[in-house]
Amino acid sequence: MKKMWGGRFKKSQDRLFWKFQSSIDYDKELAEYDVIGSLAHVKMLAKCKIIPLKASRAIIRGLEEILKDIKKGSFKIGNNAEDIHSAVYACLKNKIGASADYMHTARSRNDQVSVDMRMYVKDKSCALKAMVTEAQKSLLSLAERAIDIIIPGLTHTQQAMPILFSHQVLSYVEMLERDKTRLHRAGESCDEMPLGACALAGTSFAIDRQYTAKLLGFSKISQNSIDAVSDRDFVLDMLYSIAVFFMHVSRFCEDMILFSTSEFGIIQIPEEFCTGSSIMPQKKNPDALELLRASSAEAYANLYSVMIMMKGLPLSYNRDMQIDKKHLFDSVKKAEYALDILTKLIIGIKAESSMGDKQGIDESLFALDAADYLVRKGLAFKNAHDIIGRLTLYCTEKCIKISSVPVSRLKSFSKAFDSDFFKIFSVKKSVMGKQSQGSTNPVLVKRRINSWVQKLKP
Amino acid sequence: MKKMWGGRFKKSQDRLFWKFQSSIDYDKELAEYDVIGSLAHVKMLAKCKIIPLKASRAIIRGLEEILKDIKKGSFKIGNNAEDIHSAVYACLKNKIGASADYMHTARSRNDQVSVDMRMYVKDKSCALKAMVTEAQKSLLSLAERAIDIIIPGLTHTQQAMPILFSHQVLSYVEMLERDKTRLHRAGESCDEMPLGACALAGTSFAIDRQYTAKLLGFSKISQNSIDAVSDRDFVLDMLYSIAVFFMHVSRFCEDMILFSTSEFGIIQIPEEFCTGSSIMPQKKNPDALELLRASSAEAYANLYSVMIMMKGLPLSYNRDMQIDKKHLFDSVKKAEYALDILTKLIIGIKAESSMGDKQGIDESLFALDAADYLVRKGLAFKNAHDIIGRLTLYCTEKCIKISSVPVSRLKSFSKAFDSDFFKIFSVKKSVMGKQSQGSTNPVLVKRRINSWVQKLKP
Amino acid sequence: MKKMWGGRFKKSQDRLFWKFQSSIDYDKELAEYDVIGSLAHVKMLAKCKIIPLKASRAIIRGLEEILKDIKKGSFKIGNNAEDIHSAVYACLKNKIGASADYMHTARSRNDQVSVDMRMYVKDKSCALKAMVTEAQKSLLSLAERAIDIIIPGLTHTQQAMPILFSHQVLSYVEMLERDKTRLHRAGESCDEMPLGACALAGTSFAIDRQYTAKLLGFSKISQNSIDAVSDRDFVLDMLYSIAVFFMHVSRFCEDMILFSTSEFGIIQIPEEFCTGSSIMPQKKNPDALELLRASSAEAYANLYSVMIMMKGLPLSYNRDMQIDKKHLFDSVKKAEYALDILTKLIIGIKAESSMGDKQGIDESLFALDAADYLVRKGLAFKNAHDIIGRLTLYCTEKCIKISSVPVSRLKSFSKAFDSDFFKIFSVKKSVMGKQSQGSTNPVLVKRRINSWVQKLKP
Amino acid sequence: MKKMWGGRFKKSQDRLFWKFQSSIDYDKELAEYDVIGSLAHVKMLAKCKIIPLKASRAIIRGLEEILKDIKKGSFKIGNNAEDIHSAVYACLKNKIGASADYMHTARSRNDQVSVDMRMYVKDKSCALKAMVTEAQKSLLSLAERAIDIIIPGLTHTQQAMPILFSHQVLSYVEMLERDKTRLHRAGESCDEMPLGACALAGTSFAIDRQYTAKLLGFSKISQNSIDAVSDRDFVLDMLYSIAVFFMHVSRFCEDMILFSTSEFGIIQIPEEFCTGSSIMPQKKNPDALELLRASSAEAYANLYSVMIMMKGLPLSYNRDMQIDKKHLFDSVKKAEYALDILTKLIIGIKAESSMGDKQGIDESLFALDAADYLVRKGLAFKNAHDIIGRLTLYCTEKCIKISSVPVSRLKSFSKAFDSDFFKIFSVKKSVMGKQSQGSTNPVLVKRRINSWVQKLKP
Repeated sequence: MKKMWGGRFKKSQDRLFWKFQSSIDYDKELAEYDVIGSLAHVKMLAKCKIIPLKASRAIIRGLEEILKDIKKGSFKIGNNAEDIHSAVYACLKNKIGASADYMHTARSRNDQVSVDMRMYVKDKSCALKAMVTEAQKSLLSLAERAIDIIIPGLTHTQQAMPILFSHQVLSYVEMLERDKTRLHRAGESCDEMPLGACALAGTSFAIDRQYTAKLLGFSKISQNSIDAVSDRDFVLDMLYSIAVFFMHVSRFCEDMILFSTSEFGIIQIPEEFCTGSSIMPQKKNPDALELLRASSAEAYANLYSVMIMMKGLPLSYNRDMQIDKKHLFDSVKKAEYALDILTKLIIGIKAESSMGDKQGIDESLFALDAADYLVRKGLAFKNAHDIIGRLTLYCTEKCIKISSVPVSRLKSFSKAFDSDFFKIFSVKKSVMGKQSQGSTNPVLVKRRINSWVQKLKP
Repeated sequence: MKKMWGGRFKKSQDRLFWKFQSSIDYDKELAEYDVIGSLAHVKMLAKCKIIPLKASRAIIRGLEEILKDIKKGSFKIGNNAEDIHSAVYACLKNKIGASADYMHTARSRNDQVSVDMRMYVKDKSCALKAMVTEAQKSLLSLAERAIDIIIPGLTHTQQAMPILFSHQVLSYVEMLERDKTRLHRAGESCDEMPLGACALAGTSFAIDRQYTAKLLGFSKISQNSIDAVSDRDFVLDMLYSIAVFFMHVSRFCEDMILFSTSEFGIIQIPEEFCTGSSIMPQKKNPDALELLRASSAEAYANLYSVMIMMKGLPLSYNRDMQIDKKHLFDSVKKAEYALDILTKLIIGIKAESSMGDKQGIDESLFALDAADYLVRKGLAFKNAHDIIGRLTLYCTEKCIKISSVPVSRLKSFSKAFDSDFFKIFSVKKSVMGKQSQGSTNPVLVKRRINSWVQKLKP
Repeated sequence: MKKMWGGRFKKSQDRLFWKFQSSIDYDKELAEYDVIGSLAHVKMLAKCKIIPLKASRAIIRGLEEILKDIKKGSFKIGNNAEDIHSAVYACLKNKIGASADYMHTARSRNDQVSVDMRMYVKDKSCALKAMVTEAQKSLLSLAERAIDIIIPGLTHTQQAMPILFSHQVLSYVEMLERDKTRLHRAGESCDEMPLGACALAGTSFAIDRQYTAKLLGFSKISQNSIDAVSDRDFVLDMLYSIAVFFMHVSRFCEDMILFSTSEFGIIQIPEEFCTGSSIMPQKKNPDALELLRASSAEAYANLYSVMIMMKGLPLSYNRDMQIDKKHLFDSVKKAEYALDILTKLIIGIKAESSMGDKQGIDESLFALDAADYLVRKGLAFKNAHDIIGRLTLYCTEKCIKISSVPVSRLKSFSKAFDSDFFKIFSVKKSVMGKQSQGSTNPVLVKRRINSWVQKLKP
Repeated sequence: MKKMWGGRFKKSQDRLFWKFQSSIDYDKELAEYDVIGSLAHVKMLAKCKIIPLKASRAIIRGLEEILKDIKKGSFKIGNNAEDIHSAVYACLKNKIGASADYMHTARSRNDQVSVDMRMYVKDKSCALKAMVTEAQKSLLSLAERAIDIIIPGLTHTQQAMPILFSHQVLSYVEMLERDKTRLHRAGESCDEMPLGACALAGTSFAIDRQYTAKLLGFSKISQNSIDAVSDRDFVLDMLYSIAVFFMHVSRFCEDMILFSTSEFGIIQIPEEFCTGSSIMPQKKNPDALELLRASSAEAYANLYSVMIMMKGLPLSYNRDMQIDKKHLFDSVKKAEYALDILTKLIIGIKAESSMGDKQGIDESLFALDAADYLVRKGLAFKNAHDIIGRLTLYCTEKCIKISSVPVSRLKSFSKAFDSDFFKIFSVKKSVMGKQSQGSTNPVLVKRRINSWVQKLKP
């Protein structure tokens, strides 16, 4: 294949180096954007009368054909393509001949790859936001179905207080909403049209960058040509938004893996997202959740890789920057997988047990309710907390339940105790007793579900 | 010191563990925010009649005294304080006695530390943005001073084309502007009032969270109590914005270190930001720039540390999350140092040499200008590029300058060459010839400086 | 304080920069090593007659006094010390006057800091190995105490097969043994004496580097002066060994946190290593384990920070490298804390429940035993696995126990079933039935405990 | 394709999840090791009479055929293979029918994948060490060729002292030697035979693990079945050794990029490892070096990914661990590329300029030689350093050369100056004057080259 440079070179590239430096295996992902970018560039060149009208018409016709091929999946990349830019150019030259040589006027691969990547990030930012919304809807449907299920809320992985399972499910919806905000920000970060920066200094042709921006749907143009070809912040912003999304995913997975153990026994994960064991016939392992948890490490690593590559790079463009693509595409694909899988998996989750149904509930779950009881009787909270702490210890040592301590004995801990104290020992009353906005009170949780359903409507 | 819990414990903490778990060494940074948060909480409790008016007045008076002490720097933290929350509580109890025990009603340290951290991030987001603006102003003043200096613009750390030094300086201004955007986003991320989430489930007291939010200047309240105590996204957003800022700093430092070598000889770094050698008497080392470049690794690591800590943590609060503070404070402090130092250091930079003054300029810097010359004569860019490539090789092999090749010989490369060709061999003409917006054209660069100066005016 | 350089400087350092670049806050950790290194260096200079005998005697006397002060904790560092080297020099000059000025002959801070760091790493490698052995002994004592306790072994966090709790405890002993190997390797990595490399090129004085190496206990000298001052591999090796140690710690903590939940109910964590809640009076949270789990993120980040700082640094010494110390010392201190805390905490762990004691054991734990039963009757394993898989499904759907299926029904799954099949449903028989080396068979586990006890004897 | 499990499953896996969880795309890299491992396992089962002799013979014959196919490159993997283990099993079943079902007796994929990976790491540890030796030989040949070239040695990227270019080249040889040590350690880490651990608890069959170990060339067997399937330390050790290798590569690349700039002008990078620009016809960019520098970020990220994935994973096997392979294979491949490319590229480097040839050498390079001159005249080093510092400043301010200051003026700085002082102003004398072992003295550098050549002989 004809290289896009080379006049001053006497020797050809070392074969191994050539293979090593080629990015075509992954940057073919940019094919569509590369063609769209070139179309706009050539239209602008023609409008500004920088290239002959005839040549521009040939190029536009050629590129439009290529675009169709790409969309149909029939675009063929030559064996020796160095990158997507040279692959498209080679294909165009095949189609239209010498006119193709006008396309690269007033443009370098430095600004070309930037515009391609920015269009990619913009699209993916939108697409991923839409997919996150679908995952949120799955969660909402689970929250609706499981609205009656009360589980022990955990802090420090230890039982803390009764909560609605749906309340916990809604907390994932909140996280995902923030992920959409970050994805949106990444979309904003890339909204700057870099074409015209050329290699690094701008061009001596009187191009119309605003026109190109308009054709490509960018709201503004980059204002410094050196920065335009050196900047990968928008890639980092996208990688970061995906990394934090996966941090949330990893926590969700951890929770669901825990809840699906026979010890916790709170949920059943749908079989279609589990695998068995090659040796233990009974096993139903939560592999999808484990692999998504592991993906978080990989999404982190993709971000780190690009950050570390960029560290200490002198301006302007350096070839090091080529590796940003591989990591960006990998993170985007992992996010797409994760969202598709989670959306389906969550639909299939069965929340099985409700604490209300269980014998032998651990009464220490009501300790805060007990302290609040005393506060309502007039004690300072810190006092109440101390009293209930000592009462808990007393019961633990005697191996008795708090609810079985007679009022007379209770009064030796605090005179404020009375027979109405025993009413607190009910998980339902506990959750219904919560009054603060954002709390696990079933009325508020239902209201919140509805508000989300409204909000996420198309 | 009295612990804020402990009624149910028979044994006291292991001394070593106690020391290990104590966060007071660093979370004292939050002292002011902790008191302000408690003030608002107690005012709300009083307004909602959840605690006795008398107690609330005593608490408010006590906290206001503590706040004054903190601002004066005279707030003393007891030897055995576990964290800033218990230190403030202990101090309050000393001041006002038993009334202090009402303060912790309807609150847990889980939501308390969240509100403290959010206020901290909000303040620092603003403060750092202002400091970035100062650094930008320093850069603008450098760009103004050095407006006549032309340097070889680099791609791949190799000379590419003549550019204005000021054009490169402006590219850092662009980067910093994006850093302000990210800092601003971090400030938005933390703008959600979490108090009332308590441990994880909300509270059974009829508190008014909107009122607390209003008192503390938050624009909204968190809508899910579990999420409120589990969420550290806003910490990550801040750490990320600082990490990317430091990536930019590391590139600036790399450039300046390179430019200040005797080989490049473009700038002089002010002596006040250099150190000497214990063995080589002549040395003037760019230590400040090196240390700031190294700080980027540490700012990265602070982000990674918190991301990795959060990975796979089950909901809701886990003690692991305590370490977020150390890393956040460290990154903020490093950013403050970096901005203060850079703002001063940049002021002192002397750009020393201009390519125009130099004998023996490398004419290959004009290769693109030469190609564009041919394009203007009607050739397709790709052709022109090939011709100049071959011409360059010819001259390299003959060890002659392009500008010394006679027209007759030039014509053997392309008939389009003519005697006006030799006008391109001037760095001044090269930069002045650039026409595109955002290019290194001196008129455009000056215009951009002015536009920045206007934009950054208070 | 007098700087160790500065003759060629007209302006003094910027105060803020001075503070920023000072490393004395953390490199005081090296005080002892710095003095020991200087003592050896000066003895060598005297032996080689490079400095006057009288000066060398004064220096040696002065340094020995300083060393005593350091060991007593009475070494005072001046307010304006830049680093530990200048602090020691200043103190020496105070003590002995002008003779101190001979100490720095044929030495630079570049090789001096390297020798200090190498001695530090060597010592800490030994010290940490000894501490790991203590932690292993704690684990062995736990394994001995809990030898009768059978628990569900987990894969995918799901119950897989009955195992001895002690068998799992021994797996941590194995991990820690590998950590000692890595610590040992780090100790080997630093065993190369760099003094004499000076700034980067060696020295024009006829020094005897082998003699210095012998005095300092190094087994060899560095063979390339440029590499000697540029190399931080030994720091990375130490940071890496600690990071992997913490990875193991994080897994141990995760297991113990899980096992101590009321749902799993396998162990009790000693109260001295837990804390309570400021709001929930009953809570006993495994804070020590959570914080150690979080420390793993920090130990990772310390490694990453130094790796990233070193990336792409040109040879030889760069000031960036100064930050290696802070991260190294932090990781070492965290490892010391972790080992001290774990050694004590493990002693206090109570393994509480044995599966044998429980009603209603989940019979699917015996599925592999069931498949092996069929293999012993002559079936191919894959067949047996399929049959038991179908039998498990049959029982799950009918909600019956496998052990309650009559032989006649079993025979419809495979004719190989017989009445001796029911003997397999015992956790004791399951573990005792294991025959392979390294398996959970109690006889083998006890043997392994004894072999470890012998191995770890002093 | 038949799954290796599934009897208890009613629904089949979700298609998307199936694709997501499949590892066949990358773990086919393990094909050969998987078959070799199975061969040893089956031979052992036959020897121990655990499976029928006839079945074992059929399996062995089948596996040997498969092994031949793999080596020939004709091994076909079915479309629906889940992983390499099931692909081999499916192929075997096709070849020999029902006998294949005996192969998986007393084995799980958990111990199978561990033995495969350990064999892979062992092989790659050896292969990479051999490749590093080749790269070292390239460096030695460069050092020999360029032995007369003196360059300014850098600290802080600033000229410090004259050194031999070959001396710097040898410093890379030292770094690579340490890399071999680390690779060797990774090879030791994986030398433990895990088969027989099965899922996690060992097996009830009386297998002979020592025999399997002997067949596979392992020197010992793992001693704890839980640890055996949970351990990935050997993967980390390999990833770490490659990451540090790439840190060294990144520093080499940085140096060579710098040295090849027209400003430094020290070396020429062979054209076969450079590329041109699509816009600037003259450019010859050091792309190979830039991409290798960027690879260091990716090698770091591979290590981080696996470390982060392992953090906090409960024992024993978790599906998360599957991702270790992708990152391990990628790092190994990158190291192979890097070593192949560097070995060739270094051969082609031309060191072009020698400081001796240059007019106008910066005399401050001799400042240490000047200070040492004074020390030889009897001054304390610190004094001498101060005097030369002041002399340097004096000359800088007067814009004169040190060597042009008359003796009489010199004596006003120190009486020790004499006319022999001017002899030091020679780069050759400077390097030849170095006396310490490991210094840049040409005699010592040549000796070191020879000693390396001897050491690296096969």
